[in-house]
Amino acid sequence: MLLLNLDHIAIAVGDLDEAVERYRRLFGVEPVMREVVEEQGVEEAMMPAGGSQVQLLQPLGPDTPVGRFLQRRGEGLHHIAFAVPDIAAALAHLEAEGVELIDRVPRVGSGGRRMAFVHPRAFAGTLVELVEIE
Amino acid sequence: MLLLNLDHIAIAVGDLDEAVERYRRLFGVEPVMREVVEEQGVEEAMMPAGGSQVQLLQPLGPDTPVGRFLQRRGEGLHHIAFAVPDIAAALAHLEAEGVELIDRVPRVGSGGRRMAFVHPRAFAGTLVELVEIE
Repeated sequence: MLLLNLDHIAIAVGDLDEAVERYRRLFGVEPVMREVVEEQGVEEAMMPAGGSQVQLLQPLGPDTPVGRFLQRRGEGLHHIAFAVPDIAAALAHLEAEGVELIDRVPRVGSGGRRMAFVHPRAFAGTLVELVEIE
Repeated sequence: MLLLNLDHIAIAVGDLDEAVERYRRLFGVEPVMREVVEEQGVEEAMMPAGGSQVQLLQPLGPDTPVGRFLQRRGEGLHHIAFAVPDIAAALAHLEAEGVELIDRVPRVGSGGRRMAFVHPRAFAGTLVELVEIE
């Protein structure tokens, strides 16, 4: 299994407009993408950071995974995403190694890419997303 | 101020050997660097992730910043690091924008690079490191 890249890190925020404006003001960067992902209950903005990206996540409501994260822990790092060449193979490999998966079957995430979450228990308390890069 | 890259993300772990072995086994990656940084009270390993890196941090003792982090919050994401072309200029820009800095003057971090920490309050609860890339 190849780890192609640290694709993005995701930060949960309460106010997406304010967070985007902060990155613009402090780092001079503009969002490369902004969209609502209903299935995950978020509106998100992707801020460019060289070969990687910072994904800013605002929950669509309190009763969503990111909404509950904000209530429980406040704003901050929500997950990291690694790019892999073949997500089905990657999930099979991790499962064979005894890693606990949240998504055993890939689903479609932001930008229409295939992705899956691995349980934080597998990575020292860090929620890890795998995203397929063709 | 240019944000050149998401240089690395740092994960606090209790057992560096075990964490390195896990990345090796699950992702097939080997550390590109491993060293003790006495000044920061850590032993660290840099795992390659495309254009970025995952920095695994083990405290040298309980009475260090990462040691206290582990006791308070357990293993998990500790900070993110952005590469900038001129760290002194970056710090001056952030300070002029009212951002609270931990290090107002750059210091020397892992790999001999100049770096500084920005207070988590400035970035939605996320501890941010700036590191100078020539």
